[in-house]
Amino acid sequence: MSAKSRWADEEYQGIVRTGFRLKKRLFKGKSPFQTVEVVETKGHGKLLLIDGMTMVSERDEFVYHEMIAHVPLFLHPRPRRVLVIGGGDGGTVREVLRHKTVERCVLVEIDALVVSASKKFLPLTAGKLSDRRAVVRIEDGVKFVRETAERFDVVIVDSTEPFGPAKELFGTAFYKDVKRVLTEDGVVVSQAGSPFYEIATIKNLDRILKPVFPVVDAYLFTNLTYPGGLWAFAFASKGLRPVRDFRPQLVKAAKLPLKWYNAEVHAGAFALPEFVRKALNR
Amino acid sequence: MSAKSRWADEEYQGIVRTGFRLKKRLFKGKSPFQTVEVVETKGHGKLLLIDGMTMVSERDEFVYHEMIAHVPLFLHPRPRRVLVIGGGDGGTVREVLRHKTVERCVLVEIDALVVSASKKFLPLTAGKLSDRRAVVRIEDGVKFVRETAERFDVVIVDSTEPFGPAKELFGTAFYKDVKRVLTEDGVVVSQAGSPFYEIATIKNLDRILKPVFPVVDAYLFTNLTYPGGLWAFAFASKGLRPVRDFRPQLVKAAKLPLKWYNAEVHAGAFALPEFVRKALNR
Repeated sequence: MSAKSRWADEEYQGIVRTGFRLKKRLFKGKSPFQTVEVVETKGHGKLLLIDGMTMVSERDEFVYHEMIAHVPLFLHPRPRRVLVIGGGDGGTVREVLRHKTVERCVLVEIDALVVSASKKFLPLTAGKLSDRRAVVRIEDGVKFVRETAERFDVVIVDSTEPFGPAKELFGTAFYKDVKRVLTEDGVVVSQAGSPFYEIATIKNLDRILKPVFPVVDAYLFTNLTYPGGLWAFAFASKGLRPVRDFRPQLVKAAKLPLKWYNAEVHAGAFALPEFVRKALNR
Repeated sequence: MSAKSRWADEEYQGIVRTGFRLKKRLFKGKSPFQTVEVVETKGHGKLLLIDGMTMVSERDEFVYHEMIAHVPLFLHPRPRRVLVIGGGDGGTVREVLRHKTVERCVLVEIDALVVSASKKFLPLTAGKLSDRRAVVRIEDGVKFVRETAERFDVVIVDSTEPFGPAKELFGTAFYKDVKRVLTEDGVVVSQAGSPFYEIATIKNLDRILKPVFPVVDAYLFTNLTYPGGLWAFAFASKGLRPVRDFRPQLVKAAKLPLKWYNAEVHAGAFALPEFVRKALNR
Protein backbone atom coordinates (compact mmCIF):
# COMPACT_ATOMS: atom_id res chain seq x y z
CA MET A 1 0.00 0.00 0.00
CA SER A 2 1.76 3.14 -1.19
CA ALA A 3 1.89 6.18 1.06
CA LYS A 4 0.24 8.56 -1.39
CA SER A 5 -2.49 6.30 -2.73
CA ARG A 6 -6.09 7.33 -2.28
CA TRP A 7 -6.85 3.65 -1.96
CA ALA A 8 -5.88 1.15 0.72
CA ASP A 9 -5.15 -1.64 -1.77
CA GLU A 10 -4.52 -5.23 -0.86
CA GLU A 11 -2.91 -7.24 -3.64
CA TYR A 12 -3.47 -10.97 -3.49
CA GLN A 13 -1.52 -13.67 -5.31
CA GLY A 14 -0.50 -11.08 -7.90
CA ILE A 15 -3.81 -11.58 -9.72
CA VAL A 16 -6.40 -9.55 -7.81
CA ARG A 17 -6.51 -6.45 -5.66
CA THR A 18 -9.17 -4.93 -3.49
CA GLY A 19 -9.00 -1.27 -2.59
CA PHE A 20 -10.90 0.74 -0.03
CA ARG A 21 -11.12 4.51 -0.42
CA LEU A 22 -8.67 6.02 2.03
CA LYS A 23 -9.45 8.97 4.29
CA LYS A 24 -6.58 8.92 6.76
CA ARG A 25 -3.77 6.77 8.03
CA LEU A 26 -4.06 6.49 11.80
CA PHE A 27 -1.27 4.17 12.87
CA LYS A 28 1.58 2.06 11.59
CA GLY A 29 3.87 0.07 13.85
CA LYS A 30 6.23 -2.86 13.61
CA SER A 31 6.31 -5.60 16.24
CA PRO A 32 8.78 -8.52 16.41
CA PHE A 33 6.14 -10.50 14.51
CA GLN A 34 4.55 -8.27 11.90
CA THR A 35 3.51 -4.84 10.69
CA VAL A 36 0.29 -3.53 12.20
CA GLU A 37 -1.64 -0.67 10.58
CA VAL A 38 -4.91 1.14 11.16
CA VAL A 39 -6.42 3.31 8.44
CA GLU A 40 -9.68 5.17 8.14
CA THR A 41 -11.66 4.68 4.92
CA LYS A 42 -14.62 6.27 3.27
CA GLY A 43 -17.42 3.74 3.30
CA HIS A 44 -15.88 0.90 5.32
CA GLY A 45 -14.93 2.63 8.57
CA LYS A 46 -11.56 1.87 10.09
CA LEU A 47 -9.48 -1.09 8.87
CA LEU A 48 -6.91 -3.09 10.80
CA LEU A 49 -4.19 -4.44 8.51
CA ILE A 50 -1.49 -6.95 9.39
CA ASP A 51 1.41 -7.21 6.97
CA GLY A 52 -0.76 -5.34 4.45
CA MET A 53 -3.69 -7.77 4.70
CA THR A 54 -7.06 -6.51 5.93
CA MET A 55 -8.00 -8.33 9.13
CA VAL A 56 -10.92 -6.22 10.30
CA SER A 57 -13.12 -3.53 8.77
CA GLU A 58 -15.63 -1.75 10.93
CA ARG A 59 -18.26 -2.14 8.22
CA ASP A 60 -18.32 -5.91 8.03
CA GLU A 61 -16.35 -7.38 10.94
CA PHE A 62 -19.64 -8.55 12.42
CA VAL A 63 -19.87 -11.36 9.85
CA TYR A 64 -16.55 -12.99 10.70
CA HIS A 65 -16.86 -12.49 14.45
CA GLU A 66 -20.44 -13.70 14.71
CA MET A 67 -19.68 -16.80 12.64
CA ILE A 68 -16.47 -17.77 14.44
CA ALA A 69 -18.11 -17.39 17.86
CA HIS A 70 -21.79 -18.29 17.70
CA VAL A 71 -21.52 -21.50 15.68
CA PRO A 72 -19.55 -23.30 18.43
CA LEU A 73 -21.16 -21.43 21.33
CA PHE A 74 -24.75 -22.14 20.31
CA LEU A 75 -23.87 -25.75 19.49
CA HIS A 76 -22.30 -26.45 22.88
CA PRO A 77 -25.09 -27.12 25.43
CA ARG A 78 -23.54 -24.91 28.13
CA PRO A 79 -20.27 -23.15 27.23
CA ARG A 80 -18.68 -21.75 30.38
CA ARG A 81 -14.99 -21.47 29.59
CA VAL A 82 -13.76 -20.32 26.19
CA LEU A 83 -10.24 -20.01 24.81
CA VAL A 84 -9.52 -17.68 21.89
CA ILE A 85 -6.11 -18.02 20.22
CA GLY A 86 -5.13 -15.00 18.14
CA GLY A 87 -7.93 -12.48 17.63
CA GLY A 88 -6.12 -9.64 19.40
CA ASP A 89 -8.55 -7.15 17.85
CA GLY A 90 -11.10 -8.38 20.41
CA GLY A 91 -14.06 -8.92 18.08
CA THR A 92 -14.31 -12.63 18.80
CA VAL A 93 -14.17 -12.06 22.57
CA ARG A 94 -16.96 -9.50 22.24
CA GLU A 95 -19.23 -12.09 20.58
CA VAL A 96 -18.25 -14.86 23.03
CA LEU A 97 -19.19 -12.67 25.99
CA ARG A 98 -22.71 -12.18 24.64
CA HIS A 99 -23.37 -15.71 25.91
CA LYS A 100 -24.57 -15.50 29.50
CA THR A 101 -23.32 -19.00 30.29
CA VAL A 102 -19.71 -17.89 29.67
CA GLU A 103 -17.88 -17.31 32.95
CA ARG A 104 -14.37 -16.86 31.58
CA CYS A 105 -12.91 -16.11 28.17
CA VAL A 106 -9.13 -16.33 27.83
CA LEU A 107 -7.55 -14.57 24.84
CA VAL A 108 -4.02 -15.68 24.00
CA GLU A 109 -2.51 -13.30 21.46
CA ILE A 110 1.16 -13.52 20.54
CA ASP A 111 1.49 -9.88 19.52
CA ALA A 112 0.94 -7.11 22.11
CA LEU A 113 0.90 -4.53 19.33
CA VAL A 114 -2.31 -5.95 17.83
CA VAL A 115 -4.05 -5.61 21.19
CA SER A 116 -2.75 -2.12 21.98
CA ALA A 117 -3.49 -0.74 18.49
CA SER A 118 -7.00 -2.25 18.59
CA LYS A 119 -7.69 -0.88 22.08
CA LYS A 120 -6.65 2.58 20.95
CA PHE A 121 -8.24 2.72 17.49
CA LEU A 122 -10.90 0.01 17.32
CA PRO A 123 -13.12 0.18 20.40
CA LEU A 124 -15.85 -1.42 18.26
CA THR A 125 -14.00 -4.74 18.45
CA ALA A 126 -11.65 -4.25 21.41
CA GLY A 127 -14.15 -2.68 23.80
CA LYS A 128 -14.95 -5.91 25.63
CA LEU A 129 -11.33 -6.91 26.30
CA SER A 130 -11.65 -5.09 29.61
CA ASP A 131 -14.77 -7.06 30.61
CA ARG A 132 -14.39 -8.77 34.00
CA ARG A 133 -14.90 -12.20 32.37
CA ALA A 134 -12.12 -11.61 29.80
CA VAL A 135 -8.46 -12.43 30.43
CA VAL A 136 -5.88 -11.21 27.91
CA ARG A 137 -2.55 -13.03 27.81
CA ILE A 138 0.26 -11.92 25.52
CA GLU A 139 1.79 -15.28 24.79
CA ASP A 140 2.35 -17.91 22.12
CA GLY A 141 -0.93 -19.85 21.70
CA VAL A 142 0.90 -23.04 20.74
CA LYS A 143 2.89 -22.94 23.98
CA PHE A 144 -0.22 -22.03 25.98
CA VAL A 145 -2.24 -25.09 24.93
CA ARG A 146 0.81 -27.30 25.45
CA GLU A 147 1.32 -26.16 29.03
CA THR A 148 -1.95 -24.98 30.55
CA ALA A 149 -3.77 -27.02 33.19
CA GLU A 150 -7.02 -25.20 32.45
CA ARG A 151 -9.84 -26.84 30.48
CA PHE A 152 -12.18 -25.17 27.97
CA ASP A 153 -15.57 -25.99 26.50
CA VAL A 154 -14.82 -24.14 23.27
CA VAL A 155 -11.52 -23.25 21.61
CA ILE A 156 -11.53 -20.66 18.81
CA VAL A 157 -8.46 -20.32 16.62
CA ASP A 158 -8.77 -16.80 15.27
CA SER A 159 -5.48 -16.70 13.41
CA THR A 160 -3.86 -14.90 10.52
CA GLU A 161 -2.77 -16.83 7.42
CA PRO A 162 -0.85 -20.13 7.68
CA PHE A 163 2.60 -18.55 7.50
CA GLY A 164 4.54 -16.13 9.70
CA PRO A 165 3.64 -16.18 13.41
CA ALA A 166 0.53 -18.33 12.86
CA LYS A 167 2.33 -21.18 11.05
CA GLU A 168 2.30 -23.67 13.92
CA LEU A 169 -1.43 -23.11 14.43
CA PHE A 170 -1.85 -25.17 11.28
CA GLY A 171 -0.14 -28.30 12.64
CA THR A 172 -1.00 -31.69 14.14
CA ALA A 173 0.87 -31.17 17.43
CA PHE A 174 -1.13 -28.03 18.12
CA TYR A 175 -4.47 -29.74 17.54
CA LYS A 176 -3.53 -32.68 19.77
CA ASP A 177 -2.95 -30.13 22.52
CA VAL A 178 -6.23 -28.39 21.72
CA LYS A 179 -7.98 -31.74 22.18
CA ARG A 180 -6.25 -32.19 25.50
CA VAL A 181 -7.46 -28.83 26.84
CA LEU A 182 -11.07 -29.41 25.68
CA THR A 183 -13.75 -30.68 28.06
CA GLU A 184 -15.92 -33.70 27.24
CA ASP A 185 -18.34 -31.90 24.90
CA GLY A 186 -15.54 -29.70 23.56
CA VAL A 187 -15.68 -27.92 20.21
CA VAL A 188 -12.93 -26.16 18.24
CA VAL A 189 -13.27 -23.89 15.21
CA SER A 190 -10.45 -22.34 13.18
CA GLN A 191 -10.02 -19.69 10.51
CA ALA A 192 -9.33 -21.63 7.31
CA GLY A 193 -8.78 -19.29 4.38
CA SER A 194 -10.40 -18.70 1.01
CA PRO A 195 -11.95 -21.73 -0.71
CA PHE A 196 -11.73 -19.94 -4.08
CA TYR A 197 -8.09 -18.86 -3.88
CA GLU A 198 -6.44 -21.21 -1.40
CA ILE A 199 -8.46 -24.37 -1.02
CA ALA A 200 -5.25 -26.02 0.28
CA THR A 201 -5.71 -24.29 3.66
CA ILE A 202 -9.03 -25.93 4.53
CA LYS A 203 -7.95 -29.20 2.90
CA ASN A 204 -4.84 -29.23 5.05
CA LEU A 205 -6.72 -28.45 8.28
CA ASP A 206 -9.27 -31.14 7.42
CA ARG A 207 -6.46 -33.68 6.94
CA ILE A 208 -4.87 -32.67 10.27
CA LEU A 209 -8.13 -32.71 12.25
CA LYS A 210 -9.55 -36.03 11.01
CA PRO A 211 -7.16 -38.36 12.88
CA VAL A 212 -7.44 -36.24 16.06
CA PHE A 213 -11.19 -35.61 16.43
CA PRO A 214 -14.21 -37.89 15.95
CA VAL A 215 -16.29 -35.13 14.30
CA VAL A 216 -14.73 -32.89 11.64
CA ASP A 217 -16.50 -30.50 9.29
CA ALA A 218 -16.19 -27.09 7.63
CA TYR A 219 -18.44 -24.08 7.23
CA LEU A 220 -18.47 -20.90 5.20
CA PHE A 221 -19.39 -17.25 5.33
CA THR A 222 -18.90 -14.22 3.09
CA ASN A 223 -17.55 -10.81 3.97
CA LEU A 224 -16.55 -7.73 2.04
CA THR A 225 -12.91 -7.38 2.92
CA TYR A 226 -11.27 -10.78 2.51
CA PRO A 227 -10.05 -11.65 -1.00
CA GLY A 228 -12.77 -13.46 -2.89
CA GLY A 229 -15.42 -12.74 -0.24
CA LEU A 230 -16.08 -16.39 0.55
CA TRP A 231 -14.20 -17.72 3.58
CA ALA A 232 -13.96 -21.00 5.48
CA PHE A 233 -13.78 -22.16 9.08
CA ALA A 234 -12.71 -25.65 10.09
CA PHE A 235 -14.87 -27.35 12.73
CA ALA A 236 -13.99 -30.26 15.02
CA SER A 237 -15.47 -31.70 18.20
CA LYS A 238 -15.23 -34.59 20.61
CA GLY A 239 -18.72 -35.73 19.64
CA LEU A 240 -21.15 -32.89 18.98
CA ARG A 241 -22.32 -32.83 15.36
CA PRO A 242 -22.55 -29.27 14.08
CA VAL A 243 -26.01 -29.44 12.49
CA ARG A 244 -27.72 -32.56 13.91
CA ASP A 245 -26.93 -31.71 17.53
CA PHE A 246 -27.66 -28.01 17.11
CA ARG A 247 -30.78 -26.75 18.86
CA PRO A 248 -32.23 -23.72 17.03
CA GLN A 249 -34.46 -22.88 19.99
CA LEU A 250 -31.36 -21.85 21.99
CA VAL A 251 -30.65 -19.13 19.42
CA LYS A 252 -34.21 -17.90 19.43
CA ALA A 253 -34.36 -17.86 23.22
CA ALA A 254 -31.09 -15.92 23.57
CA LYS A 255 -32.34 -12.96 21.53
CA LEU A 256 -28.87 -11.60 20.85
CA PRO A 257 -28.65 -8.40 18.75
CA LEU A 258 -26.92 -10.04 15.77
CA LYS A 259 -26.65 -8.92 12.15
CA TRP A 260 -25.53 -12.09 10.37
CA TYR A 261 -25.88 -15.27 12.44
CA ASN A 262 -29.24 -16.90 13.08
CA ALA A 263 -30.45 -20.48 13.43
CA GLU A 264 -31.00 -20.92 9.68
CA VAL A 265 -27.60 -19.45 8.83
CA HIS A 266 -25.98 -21.87 11.31
CA ALA A 267 -27.24 -24.90 9.39
CA GLY A 268 -26.90 -23.28 5.96
CA ALA A 269 -23.24 -22.45 6.51
CA PHE A 270 -22.39 -26.17 6.57
CA ALA A 271 -23.94 -26.69 3.11
CA LEU A 272 -20.66 -26.80 1.21
CA PRO A 273 -20.50 -25.96 -2.50
CA GLU A 274 -19.69 -28.94 -4.68
CA PHE A 275 -16.07 -27.98 -5.37
CA VAL A 276 -15.36 -27.58 -1.66
CA ARG A 277 -17.06 -30.86 -0.81
CA LYS A 278 -15.01 -32.68 -3.41
CA ALA A 279 -11.78 -31.08 -2.18
CA LEU A 280 -12.57 -32.42 1.30
CA ASN A 281 -13.49 -35.88 -0.04
CA ARG A 282 -17.03 -35.68 1.33
CA MET B 1 -10.68 1.33 -16.56
CA SER B 2 -7.74 3.27 -17.96
CA ALA B 3 -6.09 2.10 -21.15
CA LYS B 4 -2.60 1.75 -19.71
CA SER B 5 -3.45 0.15 -16.38
CA ARG B 6 -2.07 -3.26 -15.59
CA TRP B 7 -5.29 -3.85 -13.70
CA ALA B 8 -8.86 -4.14 -14.93
CA ASP B 9 -10.31 -2.11 -12.04
CA GLU B 10 -13.97 -1.78 -11.27
CA GLU B 11 -14.77 1.10 -8.95
CA TYR B 12 -17.99 0.79 -7.00
CA GLN B 13 -19.91 3.53 -5.21
CA GLY B 14 -16.66 5.51 -4.98
CA ILE B 15 -15.66 3.53 -1.89
CA VAL B 16 -14.28 0.23 -3.12
CA ARG B 17 -12.51 -1.10 -6.19
CA THR B 18 -11.67 -4.57 -7.35
CA GLY B 19 -8.91 -5.09 -9.87
CA PHE B 20 -7.96 -8.11 -11.90
CA ARG B 21 -4.44 -8.36 -13.33
CA LEU B 22 -4.66 -7.51 -16.99
CA LYS B 23 -2.99 -9.49 -19.76
CA LYS B 24 -4.67 -8.18 -22.88
CA ARG B 25 -7.63 -6.18 -24.10
CA LEU B 26 -9.53 -8.26 -26.64
CA PHE B 27 -12.55 -6.19 -27.58
CA LYS B 28 -14.35 -2.94 -26.91
CA GLY B 29 -17.54 -1.91 -28.68
CA LYS B 30 -20.42 0.45 -28.16
CA SER B 31 -24.01 -0.57 -28.84
CA PRO B 32 -27.09 1.69 -28.67
CA PHE B 33 -27.48 0.43 -25.09
CA GLN B 34 -24.06 0.16 -23.47
CA THR B 35 -20.33 -0.39 -23.78
CA VAL B 36 -19.26 -4.02 -24.09
CA GLU B 37 -15.69 -5.10 -23.39
CA VAL B 38 -13.76 -8.35 -23.22
CA VAL B 39 -10.34 -8.48 -21.54
CA GLU B 40 -7.98 -11.30 -20.72
CA THR B 41 -6.61 -11.43 -17.20
CA LYS B 42 -3.91 -13.33 -15.38
CA GLY B 43 -5.63 -15.64 -12.92
CA HIS B 44 -9.29 -15.08 -13.76
CA GLY B 45 -9.44 -15.94 -17.46
CA LYS B 46 -11.40 -13.68 -19.75
CA LEU B 47 -13.82 -11.09 -18.35
CA LEU B 48 -16.92 -9.63 -19.99
CA LEU B 49 -17.58 -6.06 -18.86
CA ILE B 50 -20.67 -3.99 -19.53
CA ASP B 51 -20.33 -0.26 -18.88
CA GLY B 52 -17.15 -1.05 -16.94
CA MET B 53 -18.84 -3.58 -14.63
CA THR B 54 -17.69 -7.19 -14.63
CA MET B 55 -20.54 -9.44 -15.74
CA VAL B 56 -18.69 -12.70 -16.31
CA SER B 57 -15.24 -14.05 -15.45
CA GLU B 58 -14.18 -17.41 -16.80
CA ARG B 59 -12.81 -18.36 -13.41
CA ASP B 60 -16.00 -18.10 -11.39
CA GLU B 61 -18.96 -17.68 -13.74
CA PHE B 62 -20.06 -21.20 -12.82
CA VAL B 63 -21.32 -19.97 -9.43
CA TYR B 64 -23.74 -17.39 -10.79
CA HIS B 65 -24.92 -19.49 -13.70
CA GLU B 66 -25.46 -22.68 -11.68
CA MET B 67 -27.35 -20.80 -8.98
CA ILE B 68 -29.61 -18.82 -11.31
CA ALA B 69 -30.52 -21.92 -13.34
CA HIS B 70 -30.55 -25.00 -11.10
CA VAL B 71 -32.50 -23.56 -8.16
CA PRO B 72 -35.69 -23.07 -10.24
CA LEU B 73 -35.06 -26.00 -12.59
CA PHE B 74 -34.56 -28.60 -9.85
CA LEU B 75 -37.49 -27.18 -7.90
CA HIS B 76 -39.92 -27.41 -10.82
CA PRO B 77 -41.13 -31.03 -11.16
CA ARG B 78 -40.73 -31.13 -14.92
CA PRO B 79 -39.39 -27.95 -16.59
CA ARG B 80 -39.88 -28.18 -20.33
CA ARG B 81 -39.96 -24.59 -21.55
CA VAL B 82 -37.65 -21.97 -20.12
CA LEU B 83 -37.40 -18.24 -20.83
CA VAL B 84 -34.18 -16.36 -20.10
CA ILE B 85 -34.35 -12.55 -20.22
CA GLY B 86 -30.96 -10.89 -20.56
CA GLY B 87 -28.00 -13.23 -20.13
CA GLY B 88 -26.63 -12.69 -23.64
CA ASP B 89 -23.31 -14.24 -22.59
CA GLY B 90 -25.08 -17.62 -22.76
CA GLY B 91 -23.95 -19.04 -19.40
CA THR B 92 -27.48 -19.37 -18.05
CA VAL B 93 -28.71 -21.11 -21.22
CA ARG B 94 -25.80 -23.56 -20.93
CA GLU B 95 -26.91 -24.56 -17.42
CA VAL B 96 -30.62 -24.70 -18.37
CA LEU B 97 -29.85 -27.10 -21.21
CA ARG B 98 -28.16 -29.56 -18.85
CA HIS B 99 -31.71 -30.52 -17.79
CA LYS B 100 -32.93 -33.32 -20.03
CA THR B 101 -36.58 -32.38 -19.52
CA VAL B 102 -36.00 -29.01 -21.22
CA GLU B 103 -37.31 -29.03 -24.77
CA ARG B 104 -36.94 -25.35 -25.55
CA CYS B 105 -35.01 -22.46 -24.02
CA VAL B 106 -35.75 -18.97 -25.38
CA LEU B 107 -33.15 -16.28 -24.70
CA VAL B 108 -34.40 -12.71 -25.12
CA GLU B 109 -31.44 -10.32 -25.05
CA ILE B 110 -31.89 -6.65 -25.92
CA ASP B 111 -28.31 -6.10 -27.06
CA ALA B 112 -26.97 -8.01 -30.09
CA LEU B 113 -23.45 -6.87 -29.23
CA VAL B 114 -23.42 -8.84 -25.97
CA VAL B 115 -24.33 -12.01 -27.87
CA SER B 116 -21.87 -11.50 -30.72
CA ALA B 117 -18.95 -10.55 -28.44
CA SER B 118 -19.67 -13.55 -26.22
CA LYS B 119 -19.92 -15.93 -29.17
CA LYS B 120 -16.57 -14.71 -30.47
CA PHE B 121 -14.60 -14.41 -27.23
CA LEU B 122 -16.40 -16.48 -24.58
CA PRO B 123 -17.23 -19.93 -25.96
CA LEU B 124 -17.16 -21.19 -22.35
CA THR B 125 -20.50 -19.44 -21.73
CA ALA B 126 -21.83 -18.85 -25.26
CA GLY B 127 -21.06 -22.31 -26.66
CA LYS B 128 -24.57 -23.67 -26.12
CA LEU B 129 -26.41 -20.76 -27.77
CA SER B 130 -26.27 -22.78 -30.98
CA ASP B 131 -27.86 -25.85 -29.37
CA ARG B 132 -30.96 -27.03 -31.26
CA ARG B 133 -33.12 -26.49 -28.17
CA ALA B 134 -31.95 -22.86 -27.78
CA VAL B 135 -33.64 -19.91 -29.51
CA VAL B 136 -31.91 -16.53 -29.37
CA ARG B 137 -34.06 -13.43 -29.91
CA ILE B 138 -32.59 -9.96 -30.01
CA GLU B 139 -35.47 -8.06 -28.53
CA ASP B 140 -36.67 -6.11 -25.50
CA GLY B 141 -37.57 -8.62 -22.79
CA VAL B 142 -40.25 -6.34 -21.35
CA LYS B 143 -41.99 -6.19 -24.72
CA PHE B 144 -41.54 -9.92 -25.27
CA VAL B 145 -43.37 -10.98 -22.08
CA ARG B 146 -46.08 -8.42 -22.78
CA GLU B 147 -46.79 -9.79 -26.26
CA THR B 148 -45.87 -13.46 -26.49
CA ALA B 149 -48.48 -16.19 -26.65
CA GLU B 150 -45.96 -18.79 -25.51
CA ARG B 151 -46.00 -20.21 -21.96
CA PHE B 152 -42.98 -21.14 -19.83
CA ASP B 153 -42.41 -23.32 -16.78
CA VAL B 154 -39.47 -21.23 -15.61
CA VAL B 155 -38.54 -17.60 -16.29
CA ILE B 156 -35.02 -16.43 -15.43
CA VAL B 157 -34.32 -12.70 -15.35
CA ASP B 158 -30.56 -12.55 -15.90
CA SER B 159 -30.24 -8.79 -16.04
CA THR B 160 -27.67 -6.10 -15.46
CA GLU B 161 -28.15 -3.51 -12.70
CA PRO B 162 -31.51 -1.74 -12.17
CA PHE B 163 -30.68 1.26 -14.36
CA GLY B 164 -29.93 1.72 -18.04
CA PRO B 165 -31.48 -0.86 -20.40
CA ALA B 166 -32.54 -3.15 -17.54
CA LYS B 167 -34.53 -0.54 -15.63
CA GLU B 168 -37.99 -1.78 -16.58
CA LEU B 169 -37.06 -5.32 -15.55
CA PHE B 170 -37.35 -4.03 -11.99
CA GLY B 171 -41.01 -2.98 -12.27
CA THR B 172 -44.48 -4.24 -11.36
CA ALA B 173 -45.86 -4.23 -14.93
CA PHE B 174 -43.06 -6.53 -16.06
CA TYR B 175 -43.67 -9.05 -13.29
CA LYS B 176 -47.41 -9.11 -13.96
CA ASP B 177 -46.55 -10.10 -17.52
CA VAL B 178 -44.07 -12.70 -16.27
CA LYS B 179 -46.85 -14.22 -14.20
CA ARG B 180 -49.08 -14.30 -17.27
CA VAL B 181 -46.53 -16.24 -19.35
CA LEU B 182 -45.86 -18.77 -16.56
CA THR B 183 -47.55 -22.19 -16.52
CA GLU B 184 -49.41 -23.48 -13.47
CA ASP B 185 -46.33 -24.58 -11.48
CA GLY B 186 -44.33 -21.64 -12.81
CA VAL B 187 -41.24 -20.25 -11.11
CA VAL B 188 -39.32 -17.02 -11.72
CA VAL B 189 -35.90 -16.00 -10.38
CA SER B 190 -34.15 -12.65 -10.89
CA GLN B 191 -30.71 -11.15 -10.35
CA ALA B 192 -31.09 -8.87 -7.34
CA GLY B 193 -27.81 -7.14 -6.52
CA SER B 194 -25.49 -6.95 -3.53
CA PRO B 195 -27.07 -7.28 -0.09
CA PHE B 196 -24.03 -5.57 1.48
CA TYR B 197 -23.86 -2.57 -0.82
CA GLU B 198 -27.33 -2.18 -2.31
CA ILE B 199 -29.89 -3.91 -0.14
CA ALA B 200 -32.51 -1.64 -1.77
CA THR B 201 -32.43 -3.78 -4.93
CA ILE B 202 -33.64 -7.00 -3.30
CA LYS B 203 -35.97 -5.04 -0.99
CA ASN B 204 -37.52 -3.37 -4.00
CA LEU B 205 -37.95 -6.63 -5.94
CA ASP B 206 -39.44 -8.26 -2.86
CA ARG B 207 -41.95 -5.42 -2.53
CA ILE B 208 -42.87 -5.70 -6.24
CA LEU B 209 -43.20 -9.50 -6.23
CA LYS B 210 -45.28 -9.91 -3.06
CA PRO B 211 -48.61 -8.58 -4.42
CA VAL B 212 -48.15 -10.49 -7.69
CA PHE B 213 -47.07 -14.00 -6.58
CA PRO B 214 -48.30 -16.25 -3.76
CA VAL B 215 -44.77 -17.44 -2.91
CA VAL B 216 -41.88 -14.94 -2.71
CA ASP B 217 -38.41 -15.51 -1.28
CA ALA B 218 -34.74 -14.67 -1.83
CA TYR B 219 -31.51 -16.64 -1.97
CA LEU B 220 -27.82 -15.88 -1.96
CA PHE B 221 -24.52 -16.99 -3.42
CA THR B 222 -20.96 -15.67 -3.44
CA ASN B 223 -18.61 -15.14 -6.33
CA LEU B 224 -15.23 -13.53 -6.83
CA THR B 225 -16.01 -10.81 -9.29
CA TYR B 226 -19.08 -8.95 -8.09
CA PRO B 227 -18.50 -6.13 -5.59
CA GLY B 228 -18.71 -7.47 -2.07
CA GLY B 229 -18.79 -11.12 -3.20
CA LEU B 230 -22.23 -11.83 -1.74
CA TRP B 231 -25.09 -11.58 -4.21
CA ALA B 232 -28.87 -12.08 -4.18
CA PHE B 233 -31.54 -13.57 -6.39
CA ALA B 234 -35.23 -12.90 -5.94
CA PHE B 235 -37.52 -15.94 -6.13
CA ALA B 236 -41.26 -16.10 -6.84
CA SER B 237 -43.67 -18.84 -7.86
CA LYS B 238 -47.32 -19.62 -8.39
CA GLY B 239 -47.24 -22.12 -5.53
CA LEU B 240 -44.01 -24.11 -5.30
CA ARG B 241 -42.11 -23.35 -2.09
CA PRO B 242 -38.38 -23.17 -2.75
CA VAL B 243 -37.17 -25.42 0.09
CA ARG B 244 -40.21 -27.38 1.31
CA ASP B 245 -41.26 -28.51 -2.17
CA PHE B 246 -37.70 -29.18 -3.30
CA ARG B 247 -36.82 -32.83 -3.83
CA PRO B 248 -33.08 -33.42 -3.25
CA GLN B 249 -33.25 -36.85 -4.86
CA LEU B 250 -33.83 -35.19 -8.27
CA VAL B 251 -30.43 -33.50 -7.97
CA LYS B 252 -28.70 -36.67 -6.98
CA ALA B 253 -30.35 -38.66 -9.77
CA ALA B 254 -29.42 -36.10 -12.46
CA LYS B 255 -25.67 -36.41 -11.76
CA LEU B 256 -24.82 -33.14 -13.49
CA PRO B 257 -21.13 -32.15 -13.58
CA LEU B 258 -21.54 -29.08 -11.33
CA LYS B 259 -18.98 -27.18 -9.28
CA TRP B 260 -21.13 -25.12 -6.91
CA TYR B 261 -24.78 -26.23 -6.76
CA ASN B 262 -25.88 -29.36 -4.95
CA ALA B 263 -28.96 -30.34 -2.93
CA GLU B 264 -27.54 -28.98 0.35
CA VAL B 265 -26.51 -25.69 -1.29
CA HIS B 266 -30.04 -25.33 -2.69
CA ALA B 267 -31.58 -25.30 0.79
CA GLY B 268 -28.68 -23.46 2.42
CA ALA B 269 -28.89 -20.57 -0.05
CA PHE B 270 -32.33 -19.62 1.32
CA ALA B 271 -30.93 -19.26 4.87
CA LEU B 272 -30.75 -15.48 4.87
CA PRO B 273 -28.38 -13.61 7.17
CA GLU B 274 -30.14 -11.65 9.89
CA PHE B 275 -29.66 -8.21 8.30
CA VAL B 276 -31.12 -9.42 5.00
CA ARG B 277 -34.06 -11.10 6.72
CA LYS B 278 -34.84 -7.93 8.62
CA ALA B 279 -34.61 -5.81 5.47
CA LEU B 280 -37.20 -8.11 3.86
CA ASN B 281 -39.44 -8.03 6.95
CA ARG B 282 -39.19 -11.79 7.44
